[in-house]
Amino acid sequence: MSMRIDSIEQVQDLTRGAVLLGTGGGGDPYIGELLLKQELREGRAVDVIDATDLPDDAFVVCVAGIGAPTVLVEHLQANDVCRSLLQTLEKHLGRSVDAIIPAEVGGLNSVIPLALGAQMGLPVINADGMGRAFPHIDMVTYSVYGSRACPMVLANELGDTVIIDSASSDRKVEDIARVVTGALGAMTYGCLYPMSGADVKAKAIHGSINYSMSIGATIRKARQSSGDPVSALLDMLHNPGIGRHASLLFDGKIVDVKRETRDGWHFAVVEMIALHDSNDHFTIELQNEYLRAQHNGKTVCIVPDLLAALDRETAEPLTGERLKYGQRLKIIGVSADPVMRRPECLEVFGPGAFGFQEAFTPLETLV
Amino acid sequence: MSMRIDSIEQVQDLTRGAVLLGTGGGGDPYIGELLLKQELREGRAVDVIDATDLPDDAFVVCVAGIGAPTVLVEHLQANDVCRSLLQTLEKHLGRSVDAIIPAEVGGLNSVIPLALGAQMGLPVINADGMGRAFPHIDMVTYSVYGSRACPMVLANELGDTVIIDSASSDRKVEDIARVVTGALGAMTYGCLYPMSGADVKAKAIHGSINYSMSIGATIRKARQSSGDPVSALLDMLHNPGIGRHASLLFDGKIVDVKRETRDGWHFAVVEMIALHDSNDHFTIELQNEYLRAQHNGKTVCIVPDLLAALDRETAEPLTGERLKYGQRLKIIGVSADPVMRRPECLEVFGPGAFGFQEAFTPLETLV
Repeated sequence: MSMRIDSIEQVQDLTRGAVLLGTGGGGDPYIGELLLKQELREGRAVDVIDATDLPDDAFVVCVAGIGAPTVLVEHLQANDVCRSLLQTLEKHLGRSVDAIIPAEVGGLNSVIPLALGAQMGLPVINADGMGRAFPHIDMVTYSVYGSRACPMVLANELGDTVIIDSASSDRKVEDIARVVTGALGAMTYGCLYPMSGADVKAKAIHGSINYSMSIGATIRKARQSSGDPVSALLDMLHNPGIGRHASLLFDGKIVDVKRETRDGWHFAVVEMIALHDSNDHFTIELQNEYLRAQHNGKTVCIVPDLLAALDRETAEPLTGERLKYGQRLKIIGVSADPVMRRPECLEVFGPGAFGFQEAFTPLETLV
Repeated sequence: MSMRIDSIEQVQDLTRGAVLLGTGGGGDPYIGELLLKQELREGRAVDVIDATDLPDDAFVVCVAGIGAPTVLVEHLQANDVCRSLLQTLEKHLGRSVDAIIPAEVGGLNSVIPLALGAQMGLPVINADGMGRAFPHIDMVTYSVYGSRACPMVLANELGDTVIIDSASSDRKVEDIARVVTGALGAMTYGCLYPMSGADVKAKAIHGSINYSMSIGATIRKARQSSGDPVSALLDMLHNPGIGRHASLLFDGKIVDVKRETRDGWHFAVVEMIALHDSNDHFTIELQNEYLRAQHNGKTVCIVPDLLAALDRETAEPLTGERLKYGQRLKIIGVSADPVMRRPECLEVFGPGAFGFQEAFTPLETLV
């Protein structure tokens, strides 16, 4: 399958769906949309292709924004940074990039690869490394299945450019990239995980750009037909036949958000109560992304399964840094891609990786 | 002038003299000596040449240890790290290195370039970027006179390798290198300031390897002739005709050392009293290197002029991290190379750069 993204409607569907799958993180859709619309306005478009359409020896890399989303919102991205990243990597490795693949799904990190693809005339793979967003560079299926984040190029808008040429582990790359991002102003863009076409076919989570667009389109159409967008969304997302589950977890309002931007991440605990029962409590913990939801103290969804915070009327998905006191939300849980629930994946980005004591239990068992 | 270093005596003279000029920093001479002796034992030698012997279009780089000297002492350097650094830079720039130049003078940072030169068969320039040691990467005459620290390669013994490809300033390179060094275990080796032969001729402090060896030889000979090594040293160092001044500043014992390893540096304040008068006080402040000495509250030597802490019997120069309670020392002041006292240099590494309120006053005026 190949699809050309060349309309504003496609961009809006895509970013809206990507924010939902980004599960609170993955970057702000406002910036993401601006970036890609700019490309369309200048008459460019981008081809999204399936990994199966790639030659095995194609040279593919990820491009992503790195840093705390709270800071990201404040940065206006210079259009040249990502192109310069890619060119620095090409020069360093002496090889031309054939296609770009997202590292994760999110309002910014799904769109940056598309904007860059449009600018450079490179196709973008309809896949990513997690089918959601995660706060660490090493938390991708690419790494779990043996590809390496290095060499990785990091840069900011001021032209400060750092190459992590080799590292003893992808966690070490994460450690280095995190402190470099701090020194470069708390927000950088990165080019990482140089892979072959064969790597991508074997290791990626497939179909995520398509999936994001379907989610966005479902919300748009439900609004146009004056149906309930949240119900329409749950109907579309819940598809047990292909291992996909979705549930409404809570309907209520935010009564407190405790936030902290620390070590380059956005940490928060969101407290909610039901609309008409202040004794009915709901809590979401996040580190850039939503990690765990508890309803009156009982876990109802935990990482790597996905949580989405939706405006209860319009189903607009909200990133973690946009949550604030008084918002009325419906919280839904969505099962992760089945690959993400394998034992070797849970070891890298299951509950234990975020300091939770409890083991992973699938959403459909919890609710 | 060209000189071949191929004897243990030369190595010992060199490291001892380099520790003195390293003014408390520049790395531990024990590790430095081990490195270079290893090369000699394996039958290799190294040629030290004057900058004037370089073709203008030669390609020259600095190689140095980076990090807190307190940590440096605990690391056993893998012989391969610096070679791999150089090769990474050569590959990145697509150009072979013709000669190595020290960044600074010090027990380790004078010797690393020599050990690497012996290993790679490359000459080492009889010069450096300050005629002493300093805690910041940007505090070199190379930078003051317009050469850039980037591209810089940093690595540790584990094979973690980072390239700072471009940066908005050399202070930014310092900021990035410092946090990367933290993430890489608080001690790295760096290859930086890629320069031409013409750059080196115009911008370096010349003769520093030679000068280090003369200092070491003076101490050795005075010990052999059972003269007073400290007096012999002062006689040799004090040469007002060529703008060189040296003075005995204090003769006493250490009564307290307040230390802190913070942000990748070794900070300390050393308190001394005279041997037979506990009301006669002397203080040395240091950040990796000795920065300021005060005698009963009055400044008697301040950066960029040099301080050396010498064992009062043997004139053995001691690095800052080796100082401890009870040591009996003679403290001497030595004027910096005249280039280092120029206004454009004092702006980068004069007293103000270290947070001191007072202006620079030459040693020979203060005492």
